[in-house]
Amino acid sequence: MFSFRATDTCTTTAARAGWLSTPHGLVQTPAFMPVGTRGAVKGITARQLREVGTEILLCNTYHLALRPGEKLVERLGSLHRFTGWDGPILTDSGGFQVFSLDELRKLDDTGVMFRSTVDGSWLHLTPERAIQIQNSLGADIIMVLDVCPPAHADTPQMLQAVRRTLLWAEKCREAHRRPDQWLFAIVQGGLDENLRYECLQQLIALDFPGYAIGGLSVGEPPPQMHRILQWLGPALPAAKPRYLMGVGRPIDIAEAVACGIDMFDCVMPTRNGRNGYAFTSGGPVRLRNSRWTLADEPLDPACGCYTCSRFSKAYLRHLFVAEEMLGPILVSLHNLYYYQEFMARMRQAIRSGCFATWLEGFRRSPVAREVPNGDHEA
Amino acid sequence: MFSFRATDTCTTTAARAGWLSTPHGLVQTPAFMPVGTRGAVKGITARQLREVGTEILLCNTYHLALRPGEKLVERLGSLHRFTGWDGPILTDSGGFQVFSLDELRKLDDTGVMFRSTVDGSWLHLTPERAIQIQNSLGADIIMVLDVCPPAHADTPQMLQAVRRTLLWAEKCREAHRRPDQWLFAIVQGGLDENLRYECLQQLIALDFPGYAIGGLSVGEPPPQMHRILQWLGPALPAAKPRYLMGVGRPIDIAEAVACGIDMFDCVMPTRNGRNGYAFTSGGPVRLRNSRWTLADEPLDPACGCYTCSRFSKAYLRHLFVAEEMLGPILVSLHNLYYYQEFMARMRQAIRSGCFATWLEGFRRSPVAREVPNGDHEA
Repeated sequence: MFSFRATDTCTTTAARAGWLSTPHGLVQTPAFMPVGTRGAVKGITARQLREVGTEILLCNTYHLALRPGEKLVERLGSLHRFTGWDGPILTDSGGFQVFSLDELRKLDDTGVMFRSTVDGSWLHLTPERAIQIQNSLGADIIMVLDVCPPAHADTPQMLQAVRRTLLWAEKCREAHRRPDQWLFAIVQGGLDENLRYECLQQLIALDFPGYAIGGLSVGEPPPQMHRILQWLGPALPAAKPRYLMGVGRPIDIAEAVACGIDMFDCVMPTRNGRNGYAFTSGGPVRLRNSRWTLADEPLDPACGCYTCSRFSKAYLRHLFVAEEMLGPILVSLHNLYYYQEFMARMRQAIRSGCFATWLEGFRRSPVAREVPNGDHEA
Repeated sequence: MFSFRATDTCTTTAARAGWLSTPHGLVQTPAFMPVGTRGAVKGITARQLREVGTEILLCNTYHLALRPGEKLVERLGSLHRFTGWDGPILTDSGGFQVFSLDELRKLDDTGVMFRSTVDGSWLHLTPERAIQIQNSLGADIIMVLDVCPPAHADTPQMLQAVRRTLLWAEKCREAHRRPDQWLFAIVQGGLDENLRYECLQQLIALDFPGYAIGGLSVGEPPPQMHRILQWLGPALPAAKPRYLMGVGRPIDIAEAVACGIDMFDCVMPTRNGRNGYAFTSGGPVRLRNSRWTLADEPLDPACGCYTCSRFSKAYLRHLFVAEEMLGPILVSLHNLYYYQEFMARMRQAIRSGCFATWLEGFRRSPVAREVPNGDHEA
């Protein structure tokens, strides 16, 4: 039912291309997953997701467990049936949101107490519960509950976080009940290489079908992230899919692909799209800028998306200035298409043996100078 | 370039079916025009408009003249090119919005002074200016500037309004410069039959290519509107398209079709859609209602729209409760499809000679008991 194969590898970097087979279809890797926080990518229909080239969708366990609740989703079939997206789905464990959204919480070895952002009630998220929720939601790939400390955490905090992440990974594996779902482990350890290495070794011993890297792109400077990825990416088991959580800017994704990462998710294409920020081959376009008032050309003449085939920057700018919801929709569509095209270009470069050359060129391109780095969905 | 033909007529009512030919394509009548206030139907792409069966779009002159400005639209080609909707477009004159939005105004025979809702500046809308703006926007059908008094206006006010409406209609006709645009007249006169009749006769003498009825559905009880339509509809020139502005609920449209009306516009499908109110063959569905929490069936099993083909009421309800913008989008799509299907059903009934029977049945259906009647876009 499940399989993963890296069919092509780069000779000078750790980049690889291949495919991931799931009960709901194939995914070409390296793959980008749009974020459908509450079971919907904001403003984008399931059909539009397909049209922009999406092959796998990420949904947030935390938000769905609070509303509408995993039992409701289970009763109505599964997340696939509920959301109308019949392709592969990955759910995160909810841990990241608990740690980033809720100030009031109590953390111990059994799990984490937090207040619901929906109704203020106290909830206890344990490794067992995180798996139970994800078993009910029914995604193809589910994630262990991990402890995700902030970037500024000190060493004792970081050690404690890794210890609990390992303890919970084992508990999650034991609690997992559905062979039609793949459970991925998450490597923590912040920017400490020894801690990351230790965490990885112990997770490898538990033999998960896939490995993710968590706790990056949480506020550290990008060069720090790249330093960790350079040795950690290739150190993840080669025969299994590798997933870098919550990353990121196109340049971060490209660098991570060069480190052998296969899967990505990020809210940037949609969140930035809603704010009038478009990714283009010529670099970022901020649509509220008055320089586009009379711009009778598409966002990106090199782009084949619906938005670029039909609308001028002047029209898109008008929609943002007039606060028409079609603006966020059209730019989100474009950005999602841009990201999927970007992944396809990298896969093609890897397959044709020219990824290293492509990466060199990309590092010098205007897109590599994209700015903001607020990319996880909290 | 332009033509109109009523090809089929009902033997027992004044209903008729036919087509309207414009420089941007054919429109089957009776026709429903979705409202694209600022050059966009809220949350709906041009392609989706086509998919739900739209053949002609309405845009609001007032909003577009204030932002982005008609000169910008003209410089970028036309409203068709700017909005990406390449089918027929009708623009209203902006009069209705001036009279409903702006408290601070001065009205005389030359025109109306009002404050911009965008930047508070004083603007003078004259018949000449209304036409000039619409010539710049470039819609296929444009409207004269009329005076639209509130439903509670007294007789002297109403007389004055009709007098100015007639004066301005003539000025508009003289100011109109583009033979590739049809200029329609607007009959005013409130609920006073003599005044309506007088207004109509004088407008007929001016020989416009189409006639609209304004000043209905502005707060009067529906039976009052029907009383006016029953004689006024058939009194409009039979060889020309007849347009009832800003109406309305499905039952109001059906009754107006029975009075010989050919064209309609209304914000109800989209505005109600954004509020989680769906039109269905079984009557209205309010999606925020908790009775739909576990409803594993489409909005309307009889409906062939994208929303109904793919999503359950439970999912749509979840989107509204979670405030996901996809909820308004999917229900707006459904409602627009519902309206277009409704028009198609009436055209078919007229063509096959069974409209009167159909109308009898429709009057007894749950849809005929639809509630709210807030239908103009202000």
